[in-house]
Amino acid sequence: MASSPTIEFWYDFASTYSYLSAMRIEAMAAEQGIGVHWRPFLLGPIFAAQGWRTSPFNIYATKGRYMVRDMERLCAERGLTFALPAPFPQHSVLAARVASVGVTEGWLAPFSRTLFEAEFAKGADISNEVTICHALRNIGLDANRIVAEAQQPAVKEALRARVAEAQAKGIFGAPTFVVGKELFWGDDRLGQALQWAATT
Amino acid sequence: MASSPTIEFWYDFASTYSYLSAMRIEAMAAEQGIGVHWRPFLLGPIFAAQGWRTSPFNIYATKGRYMVRDMERLCAERGLTFALPAPFPQHSVLAARVASVGVTEGWLAPFSRTLFEAEFAKGADISNEVTICHALRNIGLDANRIVAEAQQPAVKEALRARVAEAQAKGIFGAPTFVVGKELFWGDDRLGQALQWAATT
Repeated sequence: MASSPTIEFWYDFASTYSYLSAMRIEAMAAEQGIGVHWRPFLLGPIFAAQGWRTSPFNIYATKGRYMVRDMERLCAERGLTFALPAPFPQHSVLAARVASVGVTEGWLAPFSRTLFEAEFAKGADISNEVTICHALRNIGLDANRIVAEAQQPAVKEALRARVAEAQAKGIFGAPTFVVGKELFWGDDRLGQALQWAATT
Repeated sequence: MASSPTIEFWYDFASTYSYLSAMRIEAMAAEQGIGVHWRPFLLGPIFAAQGWRTSPFNIYATKGRYMVRDMERLCAERGLTFALPAPFPQHSVLAARVASVGVTEGWLAPFSRTLFEAEFAKGADISNEVTICHALRNIGLDANRIVAEAQQPAVKEALRARVAEAQAKGIFGAPTFVVGKELFWGDDRLGQALQWAATT
């Protein structure tokens, strides 16, 4: 039996370009009959390993200003709202842990889209538990139960293991799409990655 | 009288993604009736100003390995050959000075394409005057006269001024497309930049 083609979507909730991909990947993948594995991870430890203590968009201010303008133009083209949250980047550990609970419970994709919109369309602070709970309730979930579950050692460990897996795969930024052994970095490569999944 | 829309194409001969744009920009711009101003510059002084002594693709090896694979895939899609020259990045000062002579003599675009192909399709060393002369002769030019001209103080100064202009515009990478006050960074943004030029 041939299985359907799939693509791994690696994203960090703090990442502006991950927001772009989160909002379009399911529709684009569905058009080609491709399944999407949502893989929330943290860029922080990967950046730290190469000597960065914050986002390269903060380290290199000119690049950071450009990124904001680039996001404004791309969001306008796609009918999305864009607001840079303060501080940027947001601390995304709690969001990633909560998302990790969703990996096994089936609500990962809608939760991720809802939280990305809160953060990058409305400028909400995703390090704040209230923002996370609001996103969970927006899609009809028991926020209190899930946030408590997200603090369990097994969930924290699953997230650490996923970050290690990302690093082992050679992931150095977000979003990254993985098809077999091929990495595709950036929202700009989503179309090419799906094409790869469909034809190989 | 309304003038035709134009786009500035800022590129460094050492830049892999500038090769991609150099090979397609004229055809894409012509389709929309847009004129292209080729602007050869040097990323080195701009990288140095933010503390980099070499390409970020060397500083961050994982990113460098990814870039090579990304180039291989993109070149294959576009029917281009790709070979990473050694050393990478190439020293591009001589190439940029020679190109600067071409700015006022009308052969800048064909010279640039020919040299990019020598470097990134055949792996030639563009810091070697022989490579530069070969590219000039390939398009029917007097290589000896032009290479001598490229060493004149006025040409060196024109290149320095162009690098300063790039920095003043907020350019931090190559290729960069400029339309009015809007910057578009990377070969991935060429289509959007042309769209901008056509409609604003």
